Amino acid sequence: MPEFLKVLTYQNARQLIIDHFPSREIEYLPLEMCNHRVLAMDITSPEDMPAFARSTVDGYAVRAEDTFGSSESLQGMMECVNEVRMGEEPLFEIGNGQCAWIPTGGMLPTGSNAAVMVEYTEKLGEDTVLVSRPVAPGENVMLKGEDVSRGRTIFRSGRILKAQEIGLLASLGIDRVPVFKPYNIGILSTGDEIIPLDQVPLTGQVRDVNSYSLAAALESCGAIPRRYPLVEDDFASLQKAVENALKDNDVLIMSGGSSVGVADYSVEVMLSFPDSEMLFHGIAVKPGKPTIGVRVGEKLIIGLPGHPVSALMVFYILFAPVISPASVRQVEARMTVNVASQPGRDDFIPVQLLQDDEGREAKPLLGKSGLMSIIAQADGYVHIAYEKQGIKVGDMVKVNLF
Amino acid sequence: MPEFLKVLTYQNARQLIIDHFPSREIEYLPLEMCNHRVLAMDITSPEDMPAFARSTVDGYAVRAEDTFGSSESLQGMMECVNEVRMGEEPLFEIGNGQCAWIPTGGMLPTGSNAAVMVEYTEKLGEDTVLVSRPVAPGENVMLKGEDVSRGRTIFRSGRILKAQEIGLLASLGIDRVPVFKPYNIGILSTGDEIIPLDQVPLTGQVRDVNSYSLAAALESCGAIPRRYPLVEDDFASLQKAVENALKDNDVLIMSGGSSVGVADYSVEVMLSFPDSEMLFHGIAVKPGKPTIGVRVGEKLIIGLPGHPVSALMVFYILFAPVISPASVRQVEARMTVNVASQPGRDDFIPVQLLQDDEGREAKPLLGKSGLMSIIAQADGYVHIAYEKQGIKVGDMVKVNLF
Repeated sequence: MPEFLKVLTYQNARQLIIDHFPSREIEYLPLEMCNHRVLAMDITSPEDMPAFARSTVDGYAVRAEDTFGSSESLQGMMECVNEVRMGEEPLFEIGNGQCAWIPTGGMLPTGSNAAVMVEYTEKLGEDTVLVSRPVAPGENVMLKGEDVSRGRTIFRSGRILKAQEIGLLASLGIDRVPVFKPYNIGILSTGDEIIPLDQVPLTGQVRDVNSYSLAAALESCGAIPRRYPLVEDDFASLQKAVENALKDNDVLIMSGGSSVGVADYSVEVMLSFPDSEMLFHGIAVKPGKPTIGVRVGEKLIIGLPGHPVSALMVFYILFAPVISPASVRQVEARMTVNVASQPGRDDFIPVQLLQDDEGREAKPLLGKSGLMSIIAQADGYVHIAYEKQGIKVGDMVKVNLF
Repeated sequence: MPEFLKVLTYQNARQLIIDHFPSREIEYLPLEMCNHRVLAMDITSPEDMPAFARSTVDGYAVRAEDTFGSSESLQGMMECVNEVRMGEEPLFEIGNGQCAWIPTGGMLPTGSNAAVMVEYTEKLGEDTVLVSRPVAPGENVMLKGEDVSRGRTIFRSGRILKAQEIGLLASLGIDRVPVFKPYNIGILSTGDEIIPLDQVPLTGQVRDVNSYSLAAALESCGAIPRRYPLVEDDFASLQKAVENALKDNDVLIMSGGSSVGVADYSVEVMLSFPDSEMLFHGIAVKPGKPTIGVRVGEKLIIGLPGHPVSALMVFYILFAPVISPASVRQVEARMTVNVASQPGRDDFIPVQLLQDDEGREAKPLLGKSGLMSIIAQADGYVHIAYEKQGIKVGDMVKVNLF
């Protein structure tokens, strides 16, 4: 029977995982491959954007002063001297009382300092434009560097890149981006009662759920999961499987074999490698109490409970925030019923989010421990802290979204 | 100059896009490839789960009646007749006053109807167990079919599959899943002023931002984006490029060339194909007014504004909810300032979400139209409806998350 040492709070367990998590490597990727990746360095702008003053409307480039006093009833008359073409530098100047057609995005010609929208103008023959509204200097114009000035820090390390971030990077011509390499994380299910998905369970057997659900959860955190074949609960085969999986991955997640079963060699196997150290064995949480953390050299083995619901909940509580801190999202909601909790452990309750007239509601999905059908309906979970005895109906809670 | 027909509300434009969107094909994928995919049919359970009554704790399988009256001060004494092994059907029965060791997940032996947690027992020699707490029939046991009963609909079509859903499907042995095929969506940037990312813009030129940001946004909606090389604004090359891109894709997104520029052949090109029809030309929204929808046979061309911020906003407003309805997520927040809006069009304002003591706040990111640096800081957008004149400070608003 393994020794029951170091039963910790989940915050302490999480900190130990953070402290011993392998450090992240950096890779430079072409921008088009960076969606959903995590920035590994601060990014500063290499240039001014826009690089030149440009119009934000279709209309006429003018000297703003020349439009002062124009109105519907007293239109100002201007001489239209030329037209600005998209993508071309205007090689003419705007003088007193002059204007030039300019499209949205067109470069402001020298001498002009504003643009009048075409809606407030009227063309009178070839060369004359009537203006029915004044513009202020800088109106309908974006100045050089107004969007982003050169040298400004546009994104901090740790940010998840999405369409908008990628758009801004593209605008600035940043086509190779330093991002963190995804972690390689192995998943090994153990337990004599576990069978592959495509087999029909005989009495007393259950299918290998964890390697599928944990692989999906890891993917969603930006890691690369690698599923290993099922291993039987015998020391030699388990040790060999763990040794191989550790070689290929930064972290190994084992599931099953961490409750107090007789045929449980997991812990002994984890500690059988040179330079291995038990970080924690058991956490004061529900679900997920029998979770184990072991350091092997510079790598980490996490032993999750065999039960699919517990395994997935512990993954979300302990692991997801470490692999992908920026992916954690919370919403506030009102509890629909009382939920009791035992002080002295942290409880995590799956909830469904509902919307009523007064806002968002969190409906706890209670029921016997470990109904897979329950967690599959949950939108997230709420946390009942160590010292609390529960949450009351009507309390506002933070729901951590799955 | 193209005719300005059919300026619609965005709801009408969205409905036209929905009505003319190519229908989705279904594919059956192995479960491990289904993460983030959308279920294409309702799924019913092929079996009972669990398939047998099992213990939810480590402890002793008992007849509940035999434990009635047990307490710390008056422990019940039971005869331990055997042990249940994981993955094996117990071939013995539990009689009056008897019990058997059972691990979590172990199959309940005939005759037993509950389990006592090991914490409330004490072993006295080889064959005797003292019980210090009574259990009710069914306590610490999960009955056959209690999690999911055979024939029950577990998921509806349209659901996005994540770790939990994949876990439940794995539990039930469903290893091939009907999901929608992703849409193939082409992206074609036009405009003489647009240059590739790796070139340094000369005066009056801007980089091709849209094909990068839209590709990322499409990916996040579960579509497969295909970026095409930049096309110049001349009729023949544009027509050829559009023809090719239409062949390879379900939908083609064109960006640029949809404002009233002189060198604008986009609309003529879109309508130059047999069986083509203008669905809308212009939408009463800001940003995104010059958006175009054209049907070509059974395919769809959407012309987005050339401006990167407008293009991306219109994508989120009109397009994302059509490609991936289940991906739309809203949170409620309080506006931090007044935002004025012009009645007669729908306004969409990018906002940043902040958290204060009283809850979530939405801070509008105002500024000159189309600052890419602004949308890159936004967490989502709020909608100011057609008939409204704005939103007041302190109003609760729904923020659509990016």
